[in-house]
Amino acid sequence: VPFQAIPREQSFFGLFERAAANVAAGARELAALSSNLADGEAASGRLRDIEHEGDELTHRIMATLNTTFVTPFDREDIYRLATVLDDILDAGEAVADLLVLHRIEEPLPELRQQAEVLVRATEVISKAVSRLRSLTGLNGYLIEINRLENEGDRIYRKTIARLYSGEFKAMEVLKWKDVLDQMETAIDGCEDIANVIESITLKHA
Amino acid sequence: VPFQAIPREQSFFGLFERAAANVAAGARELAALSSNLADGEAASGRLRDIEHEGDELTHRIMATLNTTFVTPFDREDIYRLATVLDDILDAGEAVADLLVLHRIEEPLPELRQQAEVLVRATEVISKAVSRLRSLTGLNGYLIEINRLENEGDRIYRKTIARLYSGEFKAMEVLKWKDVLDQMETAIDGCEDIANVIESITLKHA
Amino acid sequence: VPFQAIPREQSFFGLFERAAANVAAGARELAALSSNLADGEAASGRLRDIEHEGDELTHRIMATLNTTFVTPFDREDIYRLATVLDDILDAGEAVADLLVLHRIEEPLPELRQQAEVLVRATEVISKAVSRLRSLTGLNGYLIEINRLENEGDRIYRKTIARLYSGEFKAMEVLKWKDVLDQMETAIDGCEDIANVIESITLKHA
Repeated sequence: VPFQAIPREQSFFGLFERAAANVAAGARELAALSSNLADGEAASGRLRDIEHEGDELTHRIMATLNTTFVTPFDREDIYRLATVLDDILDAGEAVADLLVLHRIEEPLPELRQQAEVLVRATEVISKAVSRLRSLTGLNGYLIEINRLENEGDRIYRKTIARLYSGEFKAMEVLKWKDVLDQMETAIDGCEDIANVIESITLKHA
Repeated sequence: VPFQAIPREQSFFGLFERAAANVAAGARELAALSSNLADGEAASGRLRDIEHEGDELTHRIMATLNTTFVTPFDREDIYRLATVLDDILDAGEAVADLLVLHRIEEPLPELRQQAEVLVRATEVISKAVSRLRSLTGLNGYLIEINRLENEGDRIYRKTIARLYSGEFKAMEVLKWKDVLDQMETAIDGCEDIANVIESITLKHA
Repeated sequence: VPFQAIPREQSFFGLFERAAANVAAGARELAALSSNLADGEAASGRLRDIEHEGDELTHRIMATLNTTFVTPFDREDIYRLATVLDDILDAGEAVADLLVLHRIEEPLPELRQQAEVLVRATEVISKAVSRLRSLTGLNGYLIEINRLENEGDRIYRKTIARLYSGEFKAMEVLKWKDVLDQMETAIDGCEDIANVIESITLKHA
């Protein structure tokens, strides 16, 4: 065939949709783990598989970016979107790893609350990303992601306050701080994604 | 009126001047708080207002950037300048938050010393930013910002050494490390701003 | 002479080769220090000299970037390569500083293992950077850097698990965590460099 039926640049949308769905799958895995640490090693392995799938998708997005002259959005926005999706998965994998490395047996209920926020935020991201083709109907999703990030922030701060209140020993504080920070980093990444998407919509307004 | 009397791009200068003045106001609030923690919750609220004002200004700078074809500086420099001004305020707000969250009642004198360095550095930044229109007389300001960042670094390192010397309990070390790190991040941001401004001057030399 | 015999852009290659060799020298200094902490202050000083040399080279790369219209690679790749080389040295200097500040007298053997990985990775980086002119024979180097980063990651995780296992007191954990994190940051930077170089090769494929 002399011509590509689908212009190459269109592949960005499909790759981003798969990457966003993969991030949401990682968040669900993390929520399951946060409710039941007995399954730590196995869940950690499944998250690692999801993270490898994410790496593969990031790699394909970057390779497409590097070989495409006309992109549907600014190159830097494509780069940032791929990078931040990857960052969320990295932080999620770090949560699972730290739970295992620190041999944490009893999860803080607040970790599960954070994970539930992450699940909801990544599901909204997935919906938002599927609207990048049309760039319509995005506003409600962006507001919802910001609302969820604020909720995550509130949970994180409340938990840190409890952690340092004297109720826990220093070694426990050290272990949990690592875990909670990574979960907060994952949730923060959702807001970064909302910011990139907002910036894309502004440029195409 | 058929034409804009003031070309749109000129608005960047005014927005950056307001953003820099806002950052300096935040630093002064932080210095007051570092001298008197009794006022923690109220000062934390005032800093949050300043941070919201900063977010609003950042948002307007980014919106202007996304809708302006000819910018007075490279787009990436405008983006970085806005981002780093925002980062300084975020770190400053985190300092105030952590003092409250960790229920710290007695401030380390070193925190006040750091805050004073931040006040002076942000005042110099404010002066430097007001010279972005003319790009003259900047060199002295940049040198002064770097000198202050080095002074902040010296204070930070001296304080960390004392913190880990055995004089403090592990829980105290954990709490203070968080606070001092955020203050050091705010001061480091001042050097980042000097670097962006230097890069702008080099391109227009 | 009316014309430059060597086009200006060629100077990037020489500057990057010197910067990469300087980073490798820093890694060797760090490995020596990790084996023998008695020499802490002096080694810390030598690393600081190497770091200043690195700052000078970064500065020259950035100045050349800001005044060159046609660059051998994308401007952003040159910027990132210079930035990440600088980050590795910064993290290395932080390791040496923290060993002194925390008055650590007995090194963990795992720190030396990390340092050895960093030495090998920075030597491979140096070889890879010297091939940026031709962009040939890079693949094997990139694979080797990634393999070493994975090895560093494995050592880091094993060490963190031991550190939090109950064998160490909270204050020791606090001190060592800082040091190990900075060393891990330095090793992670090597992977970032491999990624930038890969991105350059893809664009010129």
